[in-house]
Amino acid sequence: MYQGGYTGKILRINLTNQTSKEETLPLDVAKDFIGGAGFGIKYLFDEVKAGTDPLGPDNKLIFASGPFSGTTIPCASRMSVTAKSPLTGAVGMALTGGYFPVELKYAGIDVLIIEGKAEKPTYVWIKDGKVQFRSAKKVWGMKTTDCQQIIKNELNDQNVRIACIGPAGEHLSKIACIINELRAAGRKGLGAVMGSKNLKAIAIRGSGEVAIADKEKYKTARDEFAKAMKDSPVLYPQFSKLGTPMVVDHACAIGIFPTKNFSATGEYAPADKIGVEMQLSRNVGSEHCYGCPVGCSQVKVATTGAYEGIMAEGPEYETFFSFGGETGVDNIDAIIAADRLADELGLDTISAGVTIGFAMELYEKGILTDKDTGGLKLNFGNDEAMLTLLRLMAYREGIGGLLADGSKAAAVKIGKGSEKYAIHVKGLELPAYDVRGAKGHGLNFATSYTGADHNRGYAFQEIFGIPVPYAVDRFSAEGKGKLTKWNQDVRSVACDAATMCAFLLDMAVPAIATQNTANLMEAVTGLKLSSEEVQTVGERINNLARAFNAREGFTRKDDTLPERLMTEPLKAGASKGHFISKEDLKKMLDEYYTERGWDVNTGTPTRRKLTDLGLGYAADALRL
Amino acid sequence: MYQGGYTGKILRINLTNQTSKEETLPLDVAKDFIGGAGFGIKYLFDEVKAGTDPLGPDNKLIFASGPFSGTTIPCASRMSVTAKSPLTGAVGMALTGGYFPVELKYAGIDVLIIEGKAEKPTYVWIKDGKVQFRSAKKVWGMKTTDCQQIIKNELNDQNVRIACIGPAGEHLSKIACIINELRAAGRKGLGAVMGSKNLKAIAIRGSGEVAIADKEKYKTARDEFAKAMKDSPVLYPQFSKLGTPMVVDHACAIGIFPTKNFSATGEYAPADKIGVEMQLSRNVGSEHCYGCPVGCSQVKVATTGAYEGIMAEGPEYETFFSFGGETGVDNIDAIIAADRLADELGLDTISAGVTIGFAMELYEKGILTDKDTGGLKLNFGNDEAMLTLLRLMAYREGIGGLLADGSKAAAVKIGKGSEKYAIHVKGLELPAYDVRGAKGHGLNFATSYTGADHNRGYAFQEIFGIPVPYAVDRFSAEGKGKLTKWNQDVRSVACDAATMCAFLLDMAVPAIATQNTANLMEAVTGLKLSSEEVQTVGERINNLARAFNAREGFTRKDDTLPERLMTEPLKAGASKGHFISKEDLKKMLDEYYTERGWDVNTGTPTRRKLTDLGLGYAADALRL
Repeated sequence: MYQGGYTGKILRINLTNQTSKEETLPLDVAKDFIGGAGFGIKYLFDEVKAGTDPLGPDNKLIFASGPFSGTTIPCASRMSVTAKSPLTGAVGMALTGGYFPVELKYAGIDVLIIEGKAEKPTYVWIKDGKVQFRSAKKVWGMKTTDCQQIIKNELNDQNVRIACIGPAGEHLSKIACIINELRAAGRKGLGAVMGSKNLKAIAIRGSGEVAIADKEKYKTARDEFAKAMKDSPVLYPQFSKLGTPMVVDHACAIGIFPTKNFSATGEYAPADKIGVEMQLSRNVGSEHCYGCPVGCSQVKVATTGAYEGIMAEGPEYETFFSFGGETGVDNIDAIIAADRLADELGLDTISAGVTIGFAMELYEKGILTDKDTGGLKLNFGNDEAMLTLLRLMAYREGIGGLLADGSKAAAVKIGKGSEKYAIHVKGLELPAYDVRGAKGHGLNFATSYTGADHNRGYAFQEIFGIPVPYAVDRFSAEGKGKLTKWNQDVRSVACDAATMCAFLLDMAVPAIATQNTANLMEAVTGLKLSSEEVQTVGERINNLARAFNAREGFTRKDDTLPERLMTEPLKAGASKGHFISKEDLKKMLDEYYTERGWDVNTGTPTRRKLTDLGLGYAADALRL
Repeated sequence: MYQGGYTGKILRINLTNQTSKEETLPLDVAKDFIGGAGFGIKYLFDEVKAGTDPLGPDNKLIFASGPFSGTTIPCASRMSVTAKSPLTGAVGMALTGGYFPVELKYAGIDVLIIEGKAEKPTYVWIKDGKVQFRSAKKVWGMKTTDCQQIIKNELNDQNVRIACIGPAGEHLSKIACIINELRAAGRKGLGAVMGSKNLKAIAIRGSGEVAIADKEKYKTARDEFAKAMKDSPVLYPQFSKLGTPMVVDHACAIGIFPTKNFSATGEYAPADKIGVEMQLSRNVGSEHCYGCPVGCSQVKVATTGAYEGIMAEGPEYETFFSFGGETGVDNIDAIIAADRLADELGLDTISAGVTIGFAMELYEKGILTDKDTGGLKLNFGNDEAMLTLLRLMAYREGIGGLLADGSKAAAVKIGKGSEKYAIHVKGLELPAYDVRGAKGHGLNFATSYTGADHNRGYAFQEIFGIPVPYAVDRFSAEGKGKLTKWNQDVRSVACDAATMCAFLLDMAVPAIATQNTANLMEAVTGLKLSSEEVQTVGERINNLARAFNAREGFTRKDDTLPERLMTEPLKAGASKGHFISKEDLKKMLDEYYTERGWDVNTGTPTRRKLTDLGLGYAADALRL
């Protein structure tokens, strides 16, 4: 035993040479970064030099689960995937659940680093840490569900777990994702990184166990956590039955469910078409990640028209937005079908939907014409066109070629003033919160190290009125710098590094998240960190990620929001009249950088801050 | 140990009462019927009374594997599914391979008899013979691949094997099939029987082994069989690389690949569009049934247009016909897509395609109009319309409702002389052999106890020129009665009862099939039968099946062929000018009945023949 919770092993796979080697995970890395995204960002910073082509062989793809993955701690069996993002050029990091992350751990691996580029389509088969490089000829071109089944058959083992790319990743779409089962490490184009390495899939199976440092404390910490989950007024009574899309009704009610490419938020609130009541009419049951007693993933089956019989795990709230509100499509069965199709093609549902919504607005404004679209009638609400366009994007065919790399790249190619309709930060399309009615969300999107990413510091305070660490007014810019720092740091450690489900943070342990993580850490790993030290791990992660981005040239000027959200007030609904003025953003950024101890002019971490966090090497790298 | 090869167990599941019980398989049943279809027909005859509604609770669904299933005998791990067919009203029996049949055996079951009707959608979970009745609420409405995955997840066991129905079976389409993995117990509407019982799926897992009676003889018999396979000039050199669709080119060349609802056979030979060369351009690899060293199932991925990325295991030769030649569709990717869609919807590809081809001819002739089709342009060659129609048929929507029960039922509803374009025997649509250029096939289709079924007595002699038991002229009616009896009896026992892959019979052991079965029987089960006695088992099966049909009212007059094939000579190609005249058919039937020892006037087995075969109880039942 290396240490409770960790296998102690980094497995490094080089696709160019078809070699692999094991390294020992240094204990101070475990203590400083805990796991998951912490490990991902640490090794990304150390190993991927400034200016590296995200789709070149020098980019690395880093999979890491957390110290509690594979134990009986509920909802802990997730993993992060990290690379330099081809979509943003910044840190690309996404998390996924399901069963692959646990299998990684059982195979004896804390961190899996994929390097180089295979000459031909390849998949990697890892059994208890032993690596085989296998031809992916049979599955190249296949959709993700088929790919996984065929590899299981080929390996003659139905218990293998597989992470793979679909056609979108093969075609290097910068909004391609990585799929395991029907789950996605969804955003920032990590599927394109995998595709650029000619890596169709990673198949994994392990027979190991995860050691527990202190079984007595483990039982106590686990029971306390389970009790907190049980005591949540939302988690079991509502969330386990409805999952994330239960937020559709609420977001519509408070006027922040973005619609028609953020042009009609509040004016058009499709809750009656795609809200909870309609969702329940399509729900047939739920699916769970490993070891999760909640099972929030709602399985839906479409029941009408050409979509009848199509099943999706989800769509999640974000996808009800991206293929629903954003595109003006209110046919719930079309949204279910689009969700499944995106999973099969390996496209990020959020970026794909927002890019389609963007194209629809350009089409309605005459900036894109039938000539551009090949006759595809890209009006808002055209569900058939949306489905067709998804396929075209995955294969880079026709108009799909123009849109396959997301809205920022498309706007550059299209020109004609289209950039002002491209709703992204740093190239990453906005998720399902119209920040004009939730300014903390706006600041988080502007400053997140991954771009407009709700998962890097979700301001649940604004949406659900939870007064932790303090109550906030969603329309106000006041105090949002401090709030955002807290949200980002806590989320980064308690969820992203510990690879625990973010829903638990928001719904079960918002006030005690870092203490909970500290308790679990001591019990499982034997590493003693105070609640404050845990929070500092979150801060360390955000600082190192920010240093990576700074080294790539990102500065304060990149911490901005789409023009529309800073100039057009919401025209209707419960957030009517609100927007984030440029002055608001400036104020929030000033507060944020100050709270972070960063240079307010450049938005860059200071040497002092980095050194305080034990990141002196990052200060050196930035020549601070 | 009961007996080598057999578990000795019949598992009887009653869905009405949600009860199950075990019975002992009588040893004389094993000796008289060997397994698979033999068992199915035996219990169908004994337990399903004349006049039973095929879609009522009194019909039974009987699954049976063979004595060699689950051993290391190659290609033996198949099973039969038997019920009274809702499509024909006669015996409905189909075989399937894959992995479910072996799991059945490992779960300790030789024969699984499903009775009654569940009140609500249900699936049955059988683990080592222990039965659970579980709600199918979650998977009802789901396509077959998703259904299987979701049940595996629900049972928390990825090694469970599942046979299920798709939407077509749920909607009681009389051409619905039963799917396990991507394989089908395809024909005669057995999926509708399952649907009528509210039975969405059977999930099975076993940990047992199959006993071998004489290990020395077993090794010898298995090695001899493996050598015969190896010595085949076709099996490994060609068949394992191309699978059944390699026949497309040959069938086109000899002018018997049926095209455009058998209206253009020979005139239109699409081998350049869907023949071997094109097939190879879509092949990515192959899949195997349990224990099969051949792996004939060719996995294809479509590469163009809206079909890009769609994978099918297959299409098999028959499906290249039914969704290709028959419908005039020559877009190979559309055929791949239609094959997969049919598997997902749970529709028999042959009957579905032939029914669509039939509808296309009616549409081109103006018997069906845009009003009937809801605007669907059902012209020959319209691949999009074909795919749409498949879906409509599975859900009984629009024109699909008219066609969901196959061409015979549709013709009755449509009237207007449409029956003469309905290409079926006893309601079962013809497979991929235009019998006008292969008269033995014609006689076999006319007399098979399941209707126009190539698998019940395939005249390989006519297609491949194999002179076993003697050489034949495919254009001649002479000697086809004797040939058909031989083909039907040998096939029924060596393949259908022994549940061994039919391709082996044709390609590896045509001349020694019954001796091979006898050798394997003695070695595995310890039951000693001579080659002649084995052949008699085949005859017994055909006689008992015929007795079942006779009890349902079938007589000589039902042993006929579609009017077109007896009146319109082929207009072009290598079989130009040929057809099966009514006189031809009469002559062939006379010879056939005489060879069988049946009453030539009625086509009914005689008491003497039945008694000779130990089927005196069938003679009693028929009041002979």
